[in-house]
Amino acid sequence: MIFSDPASVAVVGASDDPAKWGHWLARGALVGHDRRAVHLVNRGGGAVLGQPTVRSLSELAEAPELVVLAVPAAHVPAVVDEALAVGVRGFVGITSGIDDRVIRRIRDAGARLLGPNCLGVFDAATSLHLAWGRFQAGSLGVVSQSGQVGLEIAGLAASSDIGISRFVSVGNQADVTATEALLDLVSHDLTTVVGLYLESFGPGIVAAMSELRAAGKPVVLLTVGSSVAAQEAARTHTGALTSCLDVVDAACRLAGAVRVATPAALVDLAAVLTSGVPRGGRVGVISDSGGQGAIAADLAAAAGLTVPTLSAVDGLPVGASKRNPIDLAGAGEQDLANYSRAVEVLVRGGEVDTVVLSGYFGSYGEDTPSLESSEVAIAVRICSLARETGVPVVVHSMREDSAAVRTLRAGGVPVQHTIERAVAALGDAARLGALDQRSTREPDSVVPSGPSDPVAPFEPGYLAARDLLGFVRFPKAHAVTSTAEVRATCLEGPFALKADWLAHKSEHGGVKINLTDPASAFEEMRARLGPGQYVLEEMDTREHTVELIIGAKRDHSFGPVILVGAGGIHAELFRDTAIELAPVTPATARDMLARLVSAPLLSGARGAPPVDVAALSEVIAKISETLVARPDLAEIELNPVRVGPDGVVAVDALIIPSVVPLNDEERTTRGMTPPRLAGDDVQVRGPLRHSTDCGPR
Amino acid sequence: MIFSDPASVAVVGASDDPAKWGHWLARGALVGHDRRAVHLVNRGGGAVLGQPTVRSLSELAEAPELVVLAVPAAHVPAVVDEALAVGVRGFVGITSGIDDRVIRRIRDAGARLLGPNCLGVFDAATSLHLAWGRFQAGSLGVVSQSGQVGLEIAGLAASSDIGISRFVSVGNQADVTATEALLDLVSHDLTTVVGLYLESFGPGIVAAMSELRAAGKPVVLLTVGSSVAAQEAARTHTGALTSCLDVVDAACRLAGAVRVATPAALVDLAAVLTSGVPRGGRVGVISDSGGQGAIAADLAAAAGLTVPTLSAVDGLPVGASKRNPIDLAGAGEQDLANYSRAVEVLVRGGEVDTVVLSGYFGSYGEDTPSLESSEVAIAVRICSLARETGVPVVVHSMREDSAAVRTLRAGGVPVQHTIERAVAALGDAARLGALDQRSTREPDSVVPSGPSDPVAPFEPGYLAARDLLGFVRFPKAHAVTSTAEVRATCLEGPFALKADWLAHKSEHGGVKINLTDPASAFEEMRARLGPGQYVLEEMDTREHTVELIIGAKRDHSFGPVILVGAGGIHAELFRDTAIELAPVTPATARDMLARLVSAPLLSGARGAPPVDVAALSEVIAKISETLVARPDLAEIELNPVRVGPDGVVAVDALIIPSVVPLNDEERTTRGMTPPRLAGDDVQVRGPLRHSTDCGPR
Repeated sequence: MIFSDPASVAVVGASDDPAKWGHWLARGALVGHDRRAVHLVNRGGGAVLGQPTVRSLSELAEAPELVVLAVPAAHVPAVVDEALAVGVRGFVGITSGIDDRVIRRIRDAGARLLGPNCLGVFDAATSLHLAWGRFQAGSLGVVSQSGQVGLEIAGLAASSDIGISRFVSVGNQADVTATEALLDLVSHDLTTVVGLYLESFGPGIVAAMSELRAAGKPVVLLTVGSSVAAQEAARTHTGALTSCLDVVDAACRLAGAVRVATPAALVDLAAVLTSGVPRGGRVGVISDSGGQGAIAADLAAAAGLTVPTLSAVDGLPVGASKRNPIDLAGAGEQDLANYSRAVEVLVRGGEVDTVVLSGYFGSYGEDTPSLESSEVAIAVRICSLARETGVPVVVHSMREDSAAVRTLRAGGVPVQHTIERAVAALGDAARLGALDQRSTREPDSVVPSGPSDPVAPFEPGYLAARDLLGFVRFPKAHAVTSTAEVRATCLEGPFALKADWLAHKSEHGGVKINLTDPASAFEEMRARLGPGQYVLEEMDTREHTVELIIGAKRDHSFGPVILVGAGGIHAELFRDTAIELAPVTPATARDMLARLVSAPLLSGARGAPPVDVAALSEVIAKISETLVARPDLAEIELNPVRVGPDGVVAVDALIIPSVVPLNDEERTTRGMTPPRLAGDDVQVRGPLRHSTDCGPR
Repeated sequence: MIFSDPASVAVVGASDDPAKWGHWLARGALVGHDRRAVHLVNRGGGAVLGQPTVRSLSELAEAPELVVLAVPAAHVPAVVDEALAVGVRGFVGITSGIDDRVIRRIRDAGARLLGPNCLGVFDAATSLHLAWGRFQAGSLGVVSQSGQVGLEIAGLAASSDIGISRFVSVGNQADVTATEALLDLVSHDLTTVVGLYLESFGPGIVAAMSELRAAGKPVVLLTVGSSVAAQEAARTHTGALTSCLDVVDAACRLAGAVRVATPAALVDLAAVLTSGVPRGGRVGVISDSGGQGAIAADLAAAAGLTVPTLSAVDGLPVGASKRNPIDLAGAGEQDLANYSRAVEVLVRGGEVDTVVLSGYFGSYGEDTPSLESSEVAIAVRICSLARETGVPVVVHSMREDSAAVRTLRAGGVPVQHTIERAVAALGDAARLGALDQRSTREPDSVVPSGPSDPVAPFEPGYLAARDLLGFVRFPKAHAVTSTAEVRATCLEGPFALKADWLAHKSEHGGVKINLTDPASAFEEMRARLGPGQYVLEEMDTREHTVELIIGAKRDHSFGPVILVGAGGIHAELFRDTAIELAPVTPATARDMLARLVSAPLLSGARGAPPVDVAALSEVIAKISETLVARPDLAEIELNPVRVGPDGVVAVDALIIPSVVPLNDEERTTRGMTPPRLAGDDVQVRGPLRHSTDCGPR
C-alpha cells in the first residue's frame, strides 16, 4: 500500500539543518533505503546527510511512488504539479496551509494525500519512517488526528516497551481519513492493539472499530470534549442530558472499543491488552506491605474493579495475610520466590481475572547486586505464569528501571512506576472485557416494528405525538377547545389539562394536574395562553410506579441515540442516565436500565412490588426504532414515563421534527410567547383536531 | 531532640553484609559522623564498613543517646536492658516483634521508643540517617505508619526533586505517636509541607494537622479504606451513609489539610505546595497542540478545576488560539519564547489561579542541541514568573529528563511526565486553597445551646426523642394505647400512626401515614405488633417542601460527626450527603447544604419558592451540638426532615443511646420481633407514657 510500503519515496524539502523538519524526514526516509529507493530533493542542491540530492522531482530518472511535502506552503502547488506530471501516486502533507485547490488537483489526478498538517507515517514492518519523532518498533498501531498527541503516545509506548507497529498522523484528513487508516490496520500483522486519537468522528468509524475488534485488535480511543459545553442547543431534556462523550462511549460499547482520557491511559491499557483481554473485573492484589496493598485495593474499587475474598490460597508463606490484598508481610523480602508463588496462587486459582503486584519488586537487585539474578529469574517466572494462564499481570515497581523491570516488560508484563497507572490500566481492560461478556446481546435490528403508521407525516402537538407513538400507552384523553367540551367530558377525574401545542408545558404554565374542577382550570389557562387546542386527560393514579424519562435524538456524529434516565427533578440533578446508539433491542434496553443508579427502584425498593421492566424495555426499544425509521423526526421524548407492576404509561410526549415548522410570525402575533420563553425553544401549534379517546383502549 | 538530632548514636546489629538491614543502618548512621559520635555494635566484633565495632553497648566509654535496634527480636530484651542500664535515652525499633514487656521497660525507664516495626528516621538538617533507603534532602516532611509507603513517598520525592526534610517511620507507635512526630515538624525549619500516611487515627491528629497548617506547613494526608466495608454495623441511616473516608475528609477540612489516594498524588501535590497554596481553582492551560490542550482542559474539569474564558490575552503570538486552553498552534516550536510569553500572560492576568503547560516543552534541546540553551533560559524565565506572581505553574513534558526539565524542577516548577499527574496535583492544591478561602467560617463552638434540658436522661422511643430534641418542630402528636384514645383525639387529620418503641418503623410495619380512619389502622397495627405505646400524629401537609435526612453519630477515631443528605430513597441510591466533624455552626451547616448535589431544590427548583435554609441550618447545628454535649447518646437522626418556605418540620426522630438498654428477654418473650428484623437492629420499648401535645405549640 502506498502509505505503508511504497516502492520509492522522495522527501521534497530535505535539509541538512537539524532544526528543520526536512532534516528529520530525510533522516527517517533513509532508514528504509535497503527496502526502497529514497530520493532527497532540495532546491539548493548539494548533499543532505551525506546523500546526494536533486533540485526537483523532474530530475529523477523515474517517478517516486510517494512524495513527502516538507516545503513551505507557498512552494507546495508547484511541487505537487511537478509530481503529478511525473506520475507520483501519493503525498504526505507535512506542511500545513496547503491550498484546497491543490488538494483537489491531487484527488482529480487519482493520487492520494495524507494530511495536510500531519506529522507523517511510520511502519515498523516496512522500515517506513516518514514522520517527525523517534519510534520504537512494537505492536501498537496508532491513528491520530493530532500529530503531537500521536507523538506523545509513541513516546510513552517506547518507555513502556510496547512500541509502535504503525503510526499514521491523519492531520486534516483532506483525503485519507482516519476510518481508512483504521481499516488498513485490520490486516497489518504487527499490530495487535490500536490506539486512536480523534477530535471528531467521520463516517464509518464505528464499523472500522468493530472490524478491528473482530480481528482481535481492540481499539483504545482517546478523545476530548468532556469540559466543553459542546451539547447542541438542547430542545428536549434528552438533549440536555446527552453529552458528547456519553454518545462516544455508547459508540465504543457497540464497537467493542474502550475510551480513555489521556495518552498514558491509552498506552498503559494497550500494554495490558497485548497479552489479551481479561475475562472480568476481579483483581488479585499482592504486596509485601499492607499499606501498598490497601492503596492498590482502594484504587481498584474506585476503578470499578472488585477485590474478591479468596478461598484458595494454599502455597503462600507463613505470616502472609491470605485475604485479598495478599500481604506478604516481609516474606517477599525474605525470599523473592514468594512473589512468584503469590502470583501463581492467584493466576491459577481461578478466582481473579487480573493481578496487580505492588511495591518493592524490581528494586532488590538494585539495592543488593547479589540479588539481581534471582530477582530476574522471578520476573521471568511471573511472565511465564501470566502467559500460560492468560491472566493479565501488571507490576507496580518503586524502581523506574532495573534488570527485573526490563525483564518483566520484555516478557509482556507491564510495569508502572505509580500504582494509579497500574490499576487504571486494569480497570480499563476490565471495561473492555465486560463488553466481551455481552455475547448474549442480540444483534440490534434496524427494522422498525414500532410506529403504527410509519409513513404518517409529522404533525405537531401532544395529541399528534400520542398518535404517532401508537405503541405507547397513554392515559385516556381528548382535545378540548371550549369550557362546554370540558364540562361534557366522559373522562374520569382527577384530570390533567395541557396546552396541546406547547413543547415545554410546565415551564410555560401549560399544564395543570390533579384537577377535580377542570372547567375552571381550562378557563384560567385559556385566558392566559389564548384560544387553541387543549388536552383534557385522565391522571395515571396507579400506585408503586417509578418515573423515568425516555428520549431519542440524532447525534451529529453517530446518528440516532436512545436515552433512558431517572425521572423528574432527579434526572437533572443526578444525571442518572444510560445512553446507547439506536436502535436497541429490548435486551439492550434492559441492560441500560440495569446501569442506572436508580435501578433498585425498578426491582421494588423498600417493599414495593417490582415494576414491569419487560414492558419498559419494549417501549425503549420501539422509541429507538422509531427515530431510526423516521428521518423526518429529530427527537422523541416521553417525560415522564411511569412504570408500575402492570406496565408503562407515558404521561407526556414531545416530538421535534428534523426541520422545525415554526411560524415565527404566528407565534408572536398570537401572543403565545410567555416572557420566560427561551430563545431556542420550540413551539408548534397544530391545527385544531379532535381525538376520540373515550372508548376502551 | 533525641529522634532528630541525637548527640550520639549506636547501631546494634551493624553488619558488613549488604543484604542485612544492619548494613544499611550502619552506613546511614556514619553519614552523620561529623556531627555526632557513631558507634557500631556487632556481637561478632571486627570491622563494619571499615569502622571498628564493639561487641556490646557496655564496652563503650560513654552511653550513646540513641540506639538503633537492628538485631533479631530474640536478642532485643538483653540489648534493651543493657542499654537502659548504661543510660540510653532513645531507641529506634527497626526489629518487628518486640515484646510488650520490653516496650514497658523502656517507657518505665523514662526513655523513648520509635517503632517497633519501623523503617527508622531521617533528618536532612542534622545529617541523621537512621533508616533503610536513600533520601534526597529537601523540603517534604514525612510521617508514615507504613515504612514502605513512606519509602515510596521518599523515592518519588527524590525523582520529583522535592526531597525529604525529615522522615519518621512510626511503625507500631508503641510509644512515639504520629501525632508527636507531626508536632515535632511545626518548628522544623527545612520542612515546608508535610506528607502523612496513616491507617488509623490516634488522639490529637486533627489538632496537630491544624497546628502545622497554621505554621504554613500544610499536611497532605494519604490513607486507605475506601474499598473496605469498614462501616460499623449501621444502626441508623446516618451510620450507613457515613463512610470512614467521608469522616477523614471532614477532619481534613477542619484541619486545613487535604486527603489524597496515592503516594504519587501526595508528592505531586507537595511539589506544587512548596511554592505556595493557589488562591482558587481557575486554571490556565497552555499547549503548542490543540489536542494536548483539550486533554488537559478535560482533566482539569474532571478534577473540579475551572478553565475560565480569558479576557486579557495581549502578548500572544499571531495565530495562537486565545481562548483557554491557549493553543500556540506551532508558535511555541517556532519561537520558544512564546511559551514563557503565554505563561506571563496568564500569571500576570489575574484571571487564573494556576497554570499548566502541556506538551513538547522540555524536549526541544534534546531533539536539537542548538536549542538547549535557549530552552533552559525560557525555563528559568517560567520559574521566575511563577515565583514573582505566586501563581503555581506545573509543566507536563513529553520528555522525562532534560536540561530544561531539571531547570524547571530546580526552580520550583514541578514537571510531570503525564498530564494526569500535573492536573491532579493542581486539582488537589485547589481543594486545599478552597479551605483557605473559608475565612468567613465562624469558629465552631462546643457550647451546646440546643437541648432544652441537657441533663435529662436518655429515654427510648419516638416521643422521648421529640422531648429531648425540644428545639426541633414536629407535627402535633400524642401517645395512644387504646382505640378509645385514638377516637377521642383532638388532632386533625390526615394522621400518621407510629409504634413509639420501634427504631426502624417503616421496615417493620410500625408506621402508617395518610390515615383518615386512624382507629381501624390502630387496631390493625396493635393486632400485629402487640400492645404498647403508639403515637398518633398529624401529617405535615405543607406544599413545596424538600425532604432531607439529618444525623449525628460518633466516629471511633474522630468523635461526633454530623451528616445532612437528600432524603428518602434518593439518600440511599445517590448518597448525596455532606459530613463534618461536630459541632458545626449554622454557617458551616449552610456550607454543607450548598455542597449537596440536590442543593438546587432548596433554592426553589422549577418555579417552587425557596425553602427556609436558615432554619434548616440552625437545626443541623443544634443536632450536632446536642450529640457533642450528650456523651450518653450514640446517634441522633431526623429522617425525614421536611423543610419548606416557612421552616423545618421533622417527621421522624430516632435516638440511639451509647449503651443500648435492650432487654433481649423481653424482646423475644413479648413477640415484638418481626421475622425481617436484622440481627443488629435496635428496638427499645419505653414505659407507657403520655404526651400532651394537643395544645398550641
